[in-house]
Amino acid sequence: MSSFAIVGAGGLGGIYGACLARAGHDVHFLVREHAAEIRQQGWIVESVWGDFTLPEVSVYDNVDQIPKCDYIIVATKSTTNDQLLQTLLPPLIGPSTVAIVLQNGLFVEEKTADILGSDRVIGGCCFLCSIKIGPGHIRHSAYGRIEMGAYAGRNNRSPRLPPARLDQVADLFQSAKIPTTTTDNLLKARWRKLMWNIPFNGLSVVLNSMTDRIMQHPASRQLAYDLMLEVEQSASAMKIDVGAGHVDQMMEHTDQMVPYDSSMRLDFLAGRSMELEYIYQQPIIAALEHGFRPQKTIMLHQQLQFLNPNKP
Amino acid sequence: MSSFAIVGAGGLGGIYGACLARAGHDVHFLVREHAAEIRQQGWIVESVWGDFTLPEVSVYDNVDQIPKCDYIIVATKSTTNDQLLQTLLPPLIGPSTVAIVLQNGLFVEEKTADILGSDRVIGGCCFLCSIKIGPGHIRHSAYGRIEMGAYAGRNNRSPRLPPARLDQVADLFQSAKIPTTTTDNLLKARWRKLMWNIPFNGLSVVLNSMTDRIMQHPASRQLAYDLMLEVEQSASAMKIDVGAGHVDQMMEHTDQMVPYDSSMRLDFLAGRSMELEYIYQQPIIAALEHGFRPQKTIMLHQQLQFLNPNKP
Repeated sequence: MSSFAIVGAGGLGGIYGACLARAGHDVHFLVREHAAEIRQQGWIVESVWGDFTLPEVSVYDNVDQIPKCDYIIVATKSTTNDQLLQTLLPPLIGPSTVAIVLQNGLFVEEKTADILGSDRVIGGCCFLCSIKIGPGHIRHSAYGRIEMGAYAGRNNRSPRLPPARLDQVADLFQSAKIPTTTTDNLLKARWRKLMWNIPFNGLSVVLNSMTDRIMQHPASRQLAYDLMLEVEQSASAMKIDVGAGHVDQMMEHTDQMVPYDSSMRLDFLAGRSMELEYIYQQPIIAALEHGFRPQKTIMLHQQLQFLNPNKP
Repeated sequence: MSSFAIVGAGGLGGIYGACLARAGHDVHFLVREHAAEIRQQGWIVESVWGDFTLPEVSVYDNVDQIPKCDYIIVATKSTTNDQLLQTLLPPLIGPSTVAIVLQNGLFVEEKTADILGSDRVIGGCCFLCSIKIGPGHIRHSAYGRIEMGAYAGRNNRSPRLPPARLDQVADLFQSAKIPTTTTDNLLKARWRKLMWNIPFNGLSVVLNSMTDRIMQHPASRQLAYDLMLEVEQSASAMKIDVGAGHVDQMMEHTDQMVPYDSSMRLDFLAGRSMELEYIYQQPIIAALEHGFRPQKTIMLHQQLQFLNPNKP
């Protein structure tokens, strides 16, 4: 059995941490508020994988009370990476600690790698619909797969976690009933996910709409498609080939989705800061650095910056 | 004295028609509703040029009751050009009738020219803030200048009204105390105006904001600037040189404006169709035909099509 610190136990950290705890691991949850309440009540998980509760849980609102762990799962909002991680991670780091960064976007592992060393960081793309509906109460409504890869830096060539160690972590998640695959090219996985997030997170906010209406109107459907193609070009400028047919597959997949509100739109509607830095700014910078100007992505980012509530 | 038919007596047709009537011309106003009420009450004009009322007015809701006129002023919303002008214009046309199209956008004179002949059509760019606040009640809050030019077709080379005749019309407006200038390049005047309308009409709707906030936030300010530059490039593809420094002048001018709600945003907020065809679609088509792809304008148009109320 391994020990885990879940840094940020919202919809995502909550479901994965609860699965790991249910499998017998020693899981420590760090939350911003309601620690005592959750400790008393335990986790309540409504999940498409089957509902369950965890009456006995280790929940903290102070990172200094958490022991050093084998694994740190970074599941806070990426909007706080700059300020928070420098405070939250160091107390949790033992001699062989590995961090698993489950945030969305490009180079989202960078801050963690600065603190821990790039060879001790895994990035994970989560395909998950899960929200926190109350203190210690998670509703996981669809999907849930994680695609994990060793972080390899901005240039995709930094020292990285050995493949065998990555497999070990993936096996550990698998045995906790979390569908998990590995990739030897994390950057490619990140760009493939951005091809959905860049169009649909942003357009859902700017057009004030769920995914189904965006897909139904010919003009917004075309715009989503144009944006996907542009993200593919940005990736391509970095020598990342997202794979033939990926754009069409994602359009088809989105057609089949239930009407969906992106996490960015939920943040916007709740008046919280949107995760613009890693989903828009970093991909734009990366493309520009490699000689490609992603005009539509830049324009969407400008619109989102204007609309951003700028609150924690 | 001349006779005028004002087709569409809203904020724009109302103020100009009332000025012409005040100067002693024989002015016939065509309205969609409240004809009897306006006839009884007359026009009430609150204007930065000085308030006035016109107790005796010729107001109609049926075009067949209006006599043939020397001039037709087309001041309806351009969203109805396709359906309405074919019905509304022919009864008004005498042997020497000239039409003055005061709508916004590119090639907005085309439908009128199809009916009347391109050599009998003047286009006018109106720099005017004026709204109808009730039946026969106009509030003109700022500006008011018209820049008039002879329509010269999509290729800028069709037969056109002789310059002397254009000057005659401009003099007639001037003597009615409407500040009026002429241009020998209407297409250039149209593109110069689009450099403001394309960024600010669209962004005010998509970003749900008046002009002042768009100018204040660095991201949206940059986007407005980028869009202006792109419109300049579209014009340039058509061999229209908008003039050095025009972009910077317009940014400066917009900084100095009072917080302003574009007519497009007023339409949007009232649930009325937006004038997308002539302000976005035609300029995009024209640029594409001349080998330039205005990516940001296309994206803004796609967003506006999604948001368009599509009601009359």
